[in-house]
Amino acid sequence: MQPDLLDPVQLAHALQQFRRRSPLVHCMTNDVVQTFTANVLLALGASPAMVIDSEEAPQFSAIADALLINVGTLTRERAAAMRAAVESANAAHKPWTLDPVAVGALTLRTQFCQQLLALRPAAIRGNASEILALAGMSAGGRGVDSTDTASAALPAAQALARQSGAIVAVSGEVDYITDGPRVLMVTGGDVLMTRVVGTGCALSAVVAACCALPGDKLENVAAACAFMAQAGSLACAKSTGPGSFVPAFLDALYALGGNA
Amino acid sequence: MQPDLLDPVQLAHALQQFRRRSPLVHCMTNDVVQTFTANVLLALGASPAMVIDSEEAPQFSAIADALLINVGTLTRERAAAMRAAVESANAAHKPWTLDPVAVGALTLRTQFCQQLLALRPAAIRGNASEILALAGMSAGGRGVDSTDTASAALPAAQALARQSGAIVAVSGEVDYITDGPRVLMVTGGDVLMTRVVGTGCALSAVVAACCALPGDKLENVAAACAFMAQAGSLACAKSTGPGSFVPAFLDALYALGGNA
Amino acid sequence: MQPDLLDPVQLAHALQQFRRRSPLVHCMTNDVVQTFTANVLLALGASPAMVIDSEEAPQFSAIADALLINVGTLTRERAAAMRAAVESANAAHKPWTLDPVAVGALTLRTQFCQQLLALRPAAIRGNASEILALAGMSAGGRGVDSTDTASAALPAAQALARQSGAIVAVSGEVDYITDGPRVLMVTGGDVLMTRVVGTGCALSAVVAACCALPGDKLENVAAACAFMAQAGSLACAKSTGPGSFVPAFLDALYALGGNA
Repeated sequence: MQPDLLDPVQLAHALQQFRRRSPLVHCMTNDVVQTFTANVLLALGASPAMVIDSEEAPQFSAIADALLINVGTLTRERAAAMRAAVESANAAHKPWTLDPVAVGALTLRTQFCQQLLALRPAAIRGNASEILALAGMSAGGRGVDSTDTASAALPAAQALARQSGAIVAVSGEVDYITDGPRVLMVTGGDVLMTRVVGTGCALSAVVAACCALPGDKLENVAAACAFMAQAGSLACAKSTGPGSFVPAFLDALYALGGNA
Repeated sequence: MQPDLLDPVQLAHALQQFRRRSPLVHCMTNDVVQTFTANVLLALGASPAMVIDSEEAPQFSAIADALLINVGTLTRERAAAMRAAVESANAAHKPWTLDPVAVGALTLRTQFCQQLLALRPAAIRGNASEILALAGMSAGGRGVDSTDTASAALPAAQALARQSGAIVAVSGEVDYITDGPRVLMVTGGDVLMTRVVGTGCALSAVVAACCALPGDKLENVAAACAFMAQAGSLACAKSTGPGSFVPAFLDALYALGGNA
Repeated sequence: MQPDLLDPVQLAHALQQFRRRSPLVHCMTNDVVQTFTANVLLALGASPAMVIDSEEAPQFSAIADALLINVGTLTRERAAAMRAAVESANAAHKPWTLDPVAVGALTLRTQFCQQLLALRPAAIRGNASEILALAGMSAGGRGVDSTDTASAALPAAQALARQSGAIVAVSGEVDYITDGPRVLMVTGGDVLMTRVVGTGCALSAVVAACCALPGDKLENVAAACAFMAQAGSLACAKSTGPGSFVPAFLDALYALGGNA
């Protein structure tokens, strides 16, 4: 089966919806990527908020339009707050997205991510090694970096989507987005993005935001991947290394579709 | 009553004092804005230090020249460490500044901020929704973004200043700074600054630093707002989006008044 | 005794080894510098990972090639996780590096750093005030900034190296790197680097990475200092302030030795 590309008209429509609605995204994410994640969401036109306390997080996830759970710097205490936030989001019918950073390699986060799968995520975004590990088809990558290609993980992504009910996005040189039976692919981006911390984690936040948009869930998650890939390609063309990439990337997200 | 603009001579004097004294600012702030806050203080010539442990924080707040309390990613544990640091700063006669991020919307931080008001902050800096909520005149904004204008919050700011004894700064398109009877206004900046995370939080850190300067407290807090607004205007003119704004802004703070 | 400069051939060799091996560096570092530390390591070609939980950290430090312990925003809970990670790294014969941020000024971290010295760090990197304090020869600096020159701390660094068995790097206008009897010096960099948060902390992460390389330990740690000093000099020449320095610096690290 040859995956389809996302229709450019759908992509433009998703961007328009994104900017019109400015989803309020509750991010419970790792310590390393907080600033970049917030700036990516702001550049695209969303409204990020990081609320982490075990009492405040469930209060806020019921108010926000979407919730992101990223286990990059998990602790037992944070896991408890995250679970409470997920349950509250579910009760309020708000979509939540899982980024299973480095799942498989470490016990606490592996068990936690497996438990979260039962709580019906709207979307899951990971690299190939993470998706393979979460689907129970490998033991995980080397730290946070993928040691597998996205296409190799596509069957695992489809199985995971069927099992969890989530849209699953595997990112890599090409991104694959699937709900099980259907598969979309997104091209673009640049290998330079792997030399900047948080590009994958920020993509997960954009995926979370897109889950709050009306319309087709699969296309909305693919749109999130396409926003980041397009801005990444534009920024790589304008930058001389990973340092100049970051401001160029945020500017490109801001200008996407002719905003600036 | 028409608020006064800050005298440019006073502003130049405050900047000179700021650079000469290089205040050591103890920042207890949220996870999202730590790096940017430190870089803003360093660019302006202050010396930031983040100390968060419940034993170390009160030890350090007695040594530092000023303390910042920002409740953006509050937890119960952090609240205890913050309170201990505030009490220690008060005992050592060091000024402390409150940034009541998203107060009103969430219970833990709302109660905590109300309790802190009794501990005599030197200054309070927030957006209109936060100042209205802290003054008990509304239920708070939508997450961290203000849904009210600064001028609409001016009466609340004046009431809050009278009640707490603090200089209150409400930031927005125009900033208002008040001690109750007197009001100063600061213009400048750009709407692009709302697309960069931490501009408000970093302003609060600069306010905290300015509270350690000699001279008129109201003018010193207004000077903090003016430093940021001037650098913001300069940086917006040089940048093509929120990404390129950040380096341009830090460069502008560094060069303010002819430093570079 | 006149310290030697690092041989440029050795430096080129260390860089080549660094990029070929891409050391996986487990960073347990402070809240303020996480993103910058990760981006410095990525730009140079290493693979950073931040794992902080008391159960996960020792699991990961046995897998990673090197471990960094930076006490900048220490808490009692983090200290316990750090100690467990160090013990696990030692059991797995993986090198670990200590950055004793602001040691001497605050009780908890001073006691913790003293205890860690007994656990055989491969390297210690600090500013002059920190090295003097850790060696028991002064009471520490003013917060995180050094109030002493690197050359004044050289005898303390040598004593500390002899006592702990670690390579000790004192950074400042000139960096000194010593194993006790031998001393190397590294020049370069720029005073502008003191206006950017995390340059010292990121250097410690690069030192940690270099401890995983084969060859002479003293020369490898000196190479870490030289990578940062060279990139710093190049970036300062291209930047107009501390804001534009950051992207220029990361680009320079990426391009070091003709990579880009």
